[in-house]
Amino acid sequence: MTNDRRQAGFKQRTRVAEARSTLLDATSPHGRSETVPLGDADGRVLAEPIDAPVPVPGYDRAAMDGYAVRAEDTFGASNRSPAVLRATAREGPVGPGEAARVHTGSDLPAGADAVVMIEHVEEVGDEVETFDAVAAGENVGAAGEDVAEGQRLYGPGHVLRPSDLGLCKSVGIESVTVHERPEVAVIPTGEELVQSDPEPGQVIETNGLTVSRLVERWGGVPRYRSIVTDDEQSLAAAFERDLDADVVVTTGGSSVGERDLIPEVLDDLGEVLVHGVALKPGHPVCLGVIEDTPVVCLPGYPVACIVNAAQFLRPVLKRVAGTTTEPFPTRRARLDRKIPSEPGTRTFARVRLTSDGEGVEDADADAGGEDAEGDAAREVAHIATPTRASGSGVLSSVALATGWVVVPEPREGLDAGELVDVQLWEVTP
Amino acid sequence: MTNDRRQAGFKQRTRVAEARSTLLDATSPHGRSETVPLGDADGRVLAEPIDAPVPVPGYDRAAMDGYAVRAEDTFGASNRSPAVLRATAREGPVGPGEAARVHTGSDLPAGADAVVMIEHVEEVGDEVETFDAVAAGENVGAAGEDVAEGQRLYGPGHVLRPSDLGLCKSVGIESVTVHERPEVAVIPTGEELVQSDPEPGQVIETNGLTVSRLVERWGGVPRYRSIVTDDEQSLAAAFERDLDADVVVTTGGSSVGERDLIPEVLDDLGEVLVHGVALKPGHPVCLGVIEDTPVVCLPGYPVACIVNAAQFLRPVLKRVAGTTTEPFPTRRARLDRKIPSEPGTRTFARVRLTSDGEGVEDADADAGGEDAEGDAAREVAHIATPTRASGSGVLSSVALATGWVVVPEPREGLDAGELVDVQLWEVTP
Repeated sequence: MTNDRRQAGFKQRTRVAEARSTLLDATSPHGRSETVPLGDADGRVLAEPIDAPVPVPGYDRAAMDGYAVRAEDTFGASNRSPAVLRATAREGPVGPGEAARVHTGSDLPAGADAVVMIEHVEEVGDEVETFDAVAAGENVGAAGEDVAEGQRLYGPGHVLRPSDLGLCKSVGIESVTVHERPEVAVIPTGEELVQSDPEPGQVIETNGLTVSRLVERWGGVPRYRSIVTDDEQSLAAAFERDLDADVVVTTGGSSVGERDLIPEVLDDLGEVLVHGVALKPGHPVCLGVIEDTPVVCLPGYPVACIVNAAQFLRPVLKRVAGTTTEPFPTRRARLDRKIPSEPGTRTFARVRLTSDGEGVEDADADAGGEDAEGDAAREVAHIATPTRASGSGVLSSVALATGWVVVPEPREGLDAGELVDVQLWEVTP
Repeated sequence: MTNDRRQAGFKQRTRVAEARSTLLDATSPHGRSETVPLGDADGRVLAEPIDAPVPVPGYDRAAMDGYAVRAEDTFGASNRSPAVLRATAREGPVGPGEAARVHTGSDLPAGADAVVMIEHVEEVGDEVETFDAVAAGENVGAAGEDVAEGQRLYGPGHVLRPSDLGLCKSVGIESVTVHERPEVAVIPTGEELVQSDPEPGQVIETNGLTVSRLVERWGGVPRYRSIVTDDEQSLAAAFERDLDADVVVTTGGSSVGERDLIPEVLDDLGEVLVHGVALKPGHPVCLGVIEDTPVVCLPGYPVACIVNAAQFLRPVLKRVAGTTTEPFPTRRARLDRKIPSEPGTRTFARVRLTSDGEGVEDADADAGGEDAEGDAAREVAHIATPTRASGSGVLSSVALATGWVVVPEPREGLDAGELVDVQLWEVTP
């Protein structure tokens, strides 16, 4: 098969979704876990569910500054005809006809079932004139209102965020059991590559650096390896050295040319699952497995490398880490030029986003993100301009772009003026 | 003024955009910079522009495997009538009537100006029959095609991403000058707060933890301080200890109640710029400055705290770091219930996103993010369900949500069925 392909290029290309499923079906979560303090757990994947051991709040509490009362003692009270209550100690209990001063968040004294806001009372000696009637429960945060005792907060696989850490802490949790970050070997290959000072015919290695930093962003620990030359023995040795990793990634040498040795080496050591995917730029990707370790062989052209990393490496990294892959966040924008594509191929067109100026009051007003985005009534405030129509080697088309627009297989290009969701695959928090 | 407010609550509330502008106008970039290796620079803010010292590619190179030729020697060649050329050494030069074997990415030998793809030649002894005519420049990547020499790649303030690091490396850059990460003092306040094991009437501190982790995500270095009780001297001492920080943040005590001492302490030590903002949940935020250090006093209710941190702390942190604030990424969704709001107040309604199932082939197919999102032709694939109509104390309404929908000031609520942009303010990469 490999020989046929060498002669004729790729005879057939697998669709992106199918290629991904095939790889993920051959991949299992690594299953290793560790316990870390809550403060160190941002971005980590839960290995065990978290149920609330206690309710929040743990007791009925005042939701306003004012006086805790028995609601029925205020019935009929009004501005003209206040209910007159006796001030009692803050800690209570509050008996019939009594009122106890409380602050927002303090526990409701025994006997009381409501709070009259401070604005609606007048303190006269040790009497409290209340000018407002309150119902039972009014201005009270009931025990368990936020979180019920035993409530499932998060399941295994949930990726913890700062607000989650706050919620966990509020129920008394101080550490969590999470999956270890997966180890990802990143092996740049190619006899033309050097780390610096290229001679004519040499190229500086960039894919390994970029992919390593993406691995970190996606929650893994990269092993950024030395450059391996295009030699079957060297490549085989490089694979074998890293089979203890959770994922092995190579860059370069994944196509069907004379010097594209990776698919053959992978086939010798393990199994090639997919070779050639119907996506652009970047069809010569090769996906496989060696001794249960998933292997992602990315093409050497930088843009092709990045596009395939986002499509295949990210999901496989998430799966070994014990979680699922969220779609990339997007920003809605209007295309200002047409994007060509071939039907049957999924195309990733790099675009730069600019604001169209409408509705964005000024740079500062936009700073919190909601002046441009929050107006649900407004259609779109961004313009997407393709950075380069084609060229899988043109790294600047990605690196100077804000994100990319995906042209799905059934479409033949996108038209100027069309509304699109730009994938912010490298978004800054 | 403070006394008036204590009696009557907030007399007026500043609009979000105006409050933010006021704070940012009083804030300057800290201006400190450091030089770091490229591999450590992901997420860092450039302090100096980056111009390409060399072009990329640095020389004309083959874009395909095949033979380097003088294009004019192939004119008229076809399947029936090949042009017959003499094979010459790979390193060239290529004279008239000659052809040199090249691989994708190798430098074009002197004399050649085009490449005939390997599929279109037949090697016969030391002759090369070419069955295709190529134009000058065909299958050649011209020097500077990706990046021109001297081209401005990034300006100061740009936040570096993995693909940017690759592009920088490709032009021979090995380290970059970036702004130091800003130091942010995070001071939780409140006499009811404890770090663990709450007695009745006590509450576990969560805001400081959550805000510290947000500061990290947003590019800062948090100083997560011990809890400070509600006492003017203690609060003043806490502020003064951290005036060497780039930003000081407090949580709690920012409203107008009897125990809300923060605005008064801030007023004594420096200047209160804004107190009370027309946003919900979370209006009792207080923004100011002490000796040129911006101060963000967040309300103690957890949801109010988080919403205000996103609106005010994030932009001020970005500004001191020397960059600007990008709007949060969003996901387009359809509301499945109405969201109430008050006109004139900007409302942040927490929602949970679920898929509507249409167009999402299966969980794996969705894994790369483009099956659900990439179909520019499809309107929306997500449903947004409000997690809780109100309750600024209800942390679970944020922590169990995917993001929030902003109801802008002019609107009185959003209707069920409306299309909205959900802000993914805590998105996982």
